[in-house]
Amino acid sequence: MTIKLVENSYGKSRVRLLRVFREKDRHDIKELVISIAFEGNFEAAHTKGDNRKILPTDTMKNTVYALARQYPLESLENLGLHLIEHFLTYNPQVSRVRVRASENLWSRIPVGGKPHAFAFTRAEGEKRTAVLDGERGKITIRAGIEDLIVLKTAKSAFDNFLRDPYTTLKDDRNRILATSIRANWLYESDEIEFGVVWHGVRKALVEAFAEHDSESLQHTLYAMGEAVLNSMDCVREIHFSLPNKHFTAIDLAPFGLDNPAEVFLPTDEPHGLIEATVRRE
Amino acid sequence: MTIKLVENSYGKSRVRLLRVFREKDRHDIKELVISIAFEGNFEAAHTKGDNRKILPTDTMKNTVYALARQYPLESLENLGLHLIEHFLTYNPQVSRVRVRASENLWSRIPVGGKPHAFAFTRAEGEKRTAVLDGERGKITIRAGIEDLIVLKTAKSAFDNFLRDPYTTLKDDRNRILATSIRANWLYESDEIEFGVVWHGVRKALVEAFAEHDSESLQHTLYAMGEAVLNSMDCVREIHFSLPNKHFTAIDLAPFGLDNPAEVFLPTDEPHGLIEATVRRE
Amino acid sequence: MTIKLVENSYGKSRVRLLRVFREKDRHDIKELVISIAFEGNFEAAHTKGDNRKILPTDTMKNTVYALARQYPLESLENLGLHLIEHFLTYNPQVSRVRVRASENLWSRIPVGGKPHAFAFTRAEGEKRTAVLDGERGKITIRAGIEDLIVLKTAKSAFDNFLRDPYTTLKDDRNRILATSIRANWLYESDEIEFGVVWHGVRKALVEAFAEHDSESLQHTLYAMGEAVLNSMDCVREIHFSLPNKHFTAIDLAPFGLDNPAEVFLPTDEPHGLIEATVRRE
Amino acid sequence: MTIKLVENSYGKSRVRLLRVFREKDRHDIKELVISIAFEGNFEAAHTKGDNRKILPTDTMKNTVYALARQYPLESLENLGLHLIEHFLTYNPQVSRVRVRASENLWSRIPVGGKPHAFAFTRAEGEKRTAVLDGERGKITIRAGIEDLIVLKTAKSAFDNFLRDPYTTLKDDRNRILATSIRANWLYESDEIEFGVVWHGVRKALVEAFAEHDSESLQHTLYAMGEAVLNSMDCVREIHFSLPNKHFTAIDLAPFGLDNPAEVFLPTDEPHGLIEATVRRE
Repeated sequence: MTIKLVENSYGKSRVRLLRVFREKDRHDIKELVISIAFEGNFEAAHTKGDNRKILPTDTMKNTVYALARQYPLESLENLGLHLIEHFLTYNPQVSRVRVRASENLWSRIPVGGKPHAFAFTRAEGEKRTAVLDGERGKITIRAGIEDLIVLKTAKSAFDNFLRDPYTTLKDDRNRILATSIRANWLYESDEIEFGVVWHGVRKALVEAFAEHDSESLQHTLYAMGEAVLNSMDCVREIHFSLPNKHFTAIDLAPFGLDNPAEVFLPTDEPHGLIEATVRRE
Repeated sequence: MTIKLVENSYGKSRVRLLRVFREKDRHDIKELVISIAFEGNFEAAHTKGDNRKILPTDTMKNTVYALARQYPLESLENLGLHLIEHFLTYNPQVSRVRVRASENLWSRIPVGGKPHAFAFTRAEGEKRTAVLDGERGKITIRAGIEDLIVLKTAKSAFDNFLRDPYTTLKDDRNRILATSIRANWLYESDEIEFGVVWHGVRKALVEAFAEHDSESLQHTLYAMGEAVLNSMDCVREIHFSLPNKHFTAIDLAPFGLDNPAEVFLPTDEPHGLIEATVRRE
Repeated sequence: MTIKLVENSYGKSRVRLLRVFREKDRHDIKELVISIAFEGNFEAAHTKGDNRKILPTDTMKNTVYALARQYPLESLENLGLHLIEHFLTYNPQVSRVRVRASENLWSRIPVGGKPHAFAFTRAEGEKRTAVLDGERGKITIRAGIEDLIVLKTAKSAFDNFLRDPYTTLKDDRNRILATSIRANWLYESDEIEFGVVWHGVRKALVEAFAEHDSESLQHTLYAMGEAVLNSMDCVREIHFSLPNKHFTAIDLAPFGLDNPAEVFLPTDEPHGLIEATVRRE
Repeated sequence: MTIKLVENSYGKSRVRLLRVFREKDRHDIKELVISIAFEGNFEAAHTKGDNRKILPTDTMKNTVYALARQYPLESLENLGLHLIEHFLTYNPQVSRVRVRASENLWSRIPVGGKPHAFAFTRAEGEKRTAVLDGERGKITIRAGIEDLIVLKTAKSAFDNFLRDPYTTLKDDRNRILATSIRANWLYESDEIEFGVVWHGVRKALVEAFAEHDSESLQHTLYAMGEAVLNSMDCVREIHFSLPNKHFTAIDLAPFGLDNPAEVFLPTDEPHGLIEATVRRE
């Protein structure tokens, strides 16, 4: 018997960054969280404690800041591309660099009906994300969205499902449909107008969710996938991970009251979870 | 020596609720989390295990749902007033009812440029809150806001402060100012247009934050308090609890780069914390 | 009308610290989170942006580290006392210093049946806490415990309670009782063996929880309070905030199965909340 | 162009459960969180809204409770095996069932020096986990551990690493090493004494962590992997995901103090992240 290191990676996670762009009468900001991971020839570090091929993760962090200063930082994806190029150029021991990035979405505070020049607000939840995988001569870019919470109070049903002896759920032609959209999509190339496309995908997702005549969350997932692929040629496939956030109509009969789908109990657990990839072929 | 029960309360926390209002061509929703606490004559339950004066907290929960079905639920505050009246009317053993409520803020999904009739999205963070304290013949209403994150990249300084041997902080005439606004304010009466006033207070807060020439977070806190009290006659006082969310300019000199207030490290801890009440007298 | 600053405080929260004590054949560690708040004469900072009396919160943080280096750090309370003395001595503008502290509880990893000399593990939840309030010539010390989760499967009932038309809960002579103990207690003086007493209080709490014949969580709260006050002369009063973490027996009748109190659904929300202070008089 | 559903699964997540075993003079408990996912022939649900092959996730939840009542529930893994067998037997449309399970670890409260018969306490963090993947005629079982926090104050170094122009980190022969162990390991078969082995793996992990002369977290990861594989024949491979939780020695020189590795700043972000699989071949 021998014991062997099979696969391995190392890196720095949650490198946080606020970048301010100062123009004369207007500031712009981006707030990012970056994670970097290296794959490559690191066996001696594991088996012998030999660190000579280990670039410290602290250096990865420094590199994020140095590059964020030197490049315009138009998008998550642009910063990711610069980081990958930098690390692959100067680190022959590295075969693959993965950059994960997420962006907190700030918007301008309206003052007197106009967006303010340098004051911003942001919501906690929704994030724009990207994952870039770079090897020498090959790069893969996935953009994404997380924690985009949506709910509809009509055009949502779930019935005619399979029943077994443990089934107690009843058919429902008028249920609440709610989820927190987590999706990521693969680009056909690295020459994309990343910001424009991201906003287009987001629009396609929420409009499809709102308009769809839903027979299940699976059904709506697929409709959202179709909407994105039909409107964005540069997207090859889209993957979804959608919790089915259940809202149960509360039984008010013990109190002499009816409940015509008006009072619901929102619950976090347990929840359904629907995952699928929809691809253009 | 005797051992005595000095003060006590009991209740139900985190009663969650989605209320749907269905009109012909438009649905409205409210998502609330309600907590209820009773004070009163409950000593025998503690000292003797005698539960005859204890209305179960499960019943408090049921009451929230039953009343949410029967009343229009215009606002957190209206539901709170109904709950207090109900509990004080039917429970002579209760001397005081406290209702805490918070509302997740849903907005309509835009489809084709128009707000959708029954599809919604919401951000995680910001919440509208209320705390109502009711005794027989007396009620106190505080409305509030939580997790309203704001940041400005200009008009913020902190200098000329007190120095001691442990002080290393440097004067700064151009720092990032960021906080997560948590505020609650006391109403002069219970006859308030709660929704209209809440939106007015929110507007006063964010506009004051944006416009103020800040010498410190204390200074801006006070300016926000003044703005609210000056614009809303029905508000007697406002209390703030404001974390100073630090953004540190990163030293890029080791990499041969300057950093003219462009690249910052956002941090969650440690953070400053400024608390104060501003009152009209 | 005039607008006035009514009350105010400022400080630094979540100053984190690991302190290592190195002896020849044994290391000891303490991991703490400290928060400091000042009350005093800070009106000019709020109303005029005059910072001359404001010791920066960054300096508070530095002071924590400098004092943690210079003192043996036997307990949260000792560090708190040093901090209060330091700040009140050098800051005449400050009338009151509040120190909040919490400790992550590390224990030694057992190796070959013996506690290791310098390797440790810790659980996430339970924390030892302290709050010290110091004015010139007067100090108040409260120690505490948080997130101590306990559960019992026997000797727990809730019945003979008050019923109204919204009550659906049934009498239960055999329910699960579970809570997460959050308590703090007031010391009679500042000359306490803080560590010894804290462990004594913790023991009294969990033993009373286990042994008590409970008719309600209120009933058990009081029994725990009595147990602490009876065993610790130096404790004047103890305050509890106890969530009633509900475990509901699942109805298995639809599947042709009984459920003799064997399969339960644990829930986080809604939950009961019982708060009380028990005092020696 | 055609649009196609490429891969998909659906299921129920976070089904919570407390199971009580009542013997005459002793109760035992297990608290579990179960997630179930199906893969199979579900295309019509996505593309046509045809639910006839969809067993509701609500039924999955009911099945967990019904089976938890009927089987002794010795371990996560045993419950998982029963669930997989049940679902594959009665659902020909399902090709694969994945069960994820995690267990909150309760221990008996000591009273008078003896473990109590029916009163328990638990820490928040550490969890025992399992993931079972079942197809007809083939099953894969991975057990695991999460959030096992460990720290050592000696025998930890990181030096002689690769340097580039962005490297500022200094060699360190005496650093704190801390991580939160997240590991899962693959069993050679499904006939394992799951409880005994799990405790054996845990012991091997923490002892290796404590005893190892560490040149890096990679080095210690590999040592822990070797220790597990050397002591447990039934484990084929083990995968680790280890955050490097940094503790930075605080520079006290500005205050005229030295810091001989005694006062450290614990930080959560950014953090290193080391991932690897160690396998017996």
